[in-house]
Amino acid sequence: MKFNIDPDREIKIKMGGGEKVEFKLRDIMVPPDEKISLKKDYDPDFTGGYDDKEGALEKVAKNVERLAELQEKLYAQDTYALLLIFQAMDAAGKDGAIRHVMSGVNPQGCQVTSFKSPSAEELDHDYLWRANKALPARGMIGIFNRSYYEEVLVVRVHPEFLAKQKLPGEEIGDGIWKRRFGQINDFEKYLVRNGIIVLKFFLNISKKEQKKRFLSRINEPEKNWKFSVADYKERGFWGDYQDAFEDMLVNTSTKHAPWFVIPADNKWFARLAVSEVVCAAMERLGLKFPEVGPERLKELQEIKAALENE
Amino acid sequence: MKFNIDPDREIKIKMGGGEKVEFKLRDIMVPPDEKISLKKDYDPDFTGGYDDKEGALEKVAKNVERLAELQEKLYAQDTYALLLIFQAMDAAGKDGAIRHVMSGVNPQGCQVTSFKSPSAEELDHDYLWRANKALPARGMIGIFNRSYYEEVLVVRVHPEFLAKQKLPGEEIGDGIWKRRFGQINDFEKYLVRNGIIVLKFFLNISKKEQKKRFLSRINEPEKNWKFSVADYKERGFWGDYQDAFEDMLVNTSTKHAPWFVIPADNKWFARLAVSEVVCAAMERLGLKFPEVGPERLKELQEIKAALENE
Repeated sequence: MKFNIDPDREIKIKMGGGEKVEFKLRDIMVPPDEKISLKKDYDPDFTGGYDDKEGALEKVAKNVERLAELQEKLYAQDTYALLLIFQAMDAAGKDGAIRHVMSGVNPQGCQVTSFKSPSAEELDHDYLWRANKALPARGMIGIFNRSYYEEVLVVRVHPEFLAKQKLPGEEIGDGIWKRRFGQINDFEKYLVRNGIIVLKFFLNISKKEQKKRFLSRINEPEKNWKFSVADYKERGFWGDYQDAFEDMLVNTSTKHAPWFVIPADNKWFARLAVSEVVCAAMERLGLKFPEVGPERLKELQEIKAALENE
Repeated sequence: MKFNIDPDREIKIKMGGGEKVEFKLRDIMVPPDEKISLKKDYDPDFTGGYDDKEGALEKVAKNVERLAELQEKLYAQDTYALLLIFQAMDAAGKDGAIRHVMSGVNPQGCQVTSFKSPSAEELDHDYLWRANKALPARGMIGIFNRSYYEEVLVVRVHPEFLAKQKLPGEEIGDGIWKRRFGQINDFEKYLVRNGIIVLKFFLNISKKEQKKRFLSRINEPEKNWKFSVADYKERGFWGDYQDAFEDMLVNTSTKHAPWFVIPADNKWFARLAVSEVVCAAMERLGLKFPEVGPERLKELQEIKAALENE
């Protein structure tokens, strides 16, 4: 399997003014097969000691250019696809991260799917069915804004959703979350072995920062239409969600499809970190434009001659 | 029906240096119910007398920003969708126009579908089936890179493709293209009445310019992998395609879903013209963020108080 990220890879971001932010992938990546503590090991306010917001956003813009170039090769080579999965509490900045890291990439090579509450048709299928339909084709970057991971998050925090899934009775009850972790790991291993590289981002926001962002949403007329009582109510389950996230991270961060815990209290740092990880992963694929063999070269020369003699 | 473009609308583009390019929408729009001549009425080299490429591209960048703002409202209002259809001869610049006009728009609100040769499953359905599946949801900008219009273009130029469509025998033969024009007009009228605004762009390239671009594709290693003998062979049917395009434009440019003939010999002008038309169409929709009514405002104030008292 070609894809495998080295947790000791150092991320060194040199900024314009000679300053730099430095951290290892390990600082934001969940190591496979290790017990981590979301609360103790991952600080939502982490910025690698760096605080130049403007410099960081310039670097994001450069990464976006790099990403756009890499995506062209991804498309031309037509062997791999990239699947980026975003999960987070409300207001952690999923939409903003997607907009900032992916605007500038050719929309023809990038496709975002936002998963909402499952429809009646979707509930009549297994829980990976709708995700399967939305997978990116080779050459494409697919982004899941929420994903099948909701099946071990919101569905776990609110067991009444599980009851609606019409599962065989013997499959509900003890051990369902462990089984789902295993099913998801198998699914993702299958994807990676078939060329669909899976990167998973948990945008890690603090409860304090969420409060601040909720208040600002309420106060801004361009944002308050999308703020709902439901968003606020979910905040009441903060602890349950943190537990569910932690268990998900411990059980589904694998060598083939690692989770990154993106410090999200500073939007600029979250965007920087996501763009760095995506660039690093794409660079590891050794993407290149298809080479033109001797037969094809001859064919092209013939067409060239024919065009010139028209 | 809210959507209707005024052909007398003037496009005045004021550039940085005080210069301007000026033309009426009529200059590039195909008037409904009029007989036009593609060859006589539409010059692939038209630029409205303007030749400042750099200035034009700056204006395109401004239009992209405007588009990104309008798309946010389109999404928030959740009433309309935009469907942009691109058709052209090879190398006319469809991909580049899509990339330049749509990069910068939030990829979460924009979805590009490239239609290739129909699959066996698609051929077992009516010809609009696969287009239907790819329609943009409300709030989204959908882009068709090629579309169901291939059914009156490549299928008309190469009748052997029609034979593969397994149509009832009595439906093949005389009058099929006229009937298809009517079916497409009905389909698009239905879409527009349901909030899916349809804008159609024919990128009009000259045979001479296509030759130049083919030669440059052959010579550039980053491009030659995507140049095929098939592309070159289609050039041999140039006249047939021009006739098919003209008949399509005459018969399917309607008030509710007009065709724009985009002069495409100058890529910068094509991108400028497309971005102007899309902005003009979106501005006509009167998009706005949903207003928050008194009840909802009260609810928001309650949440605000609860958050502040946590």
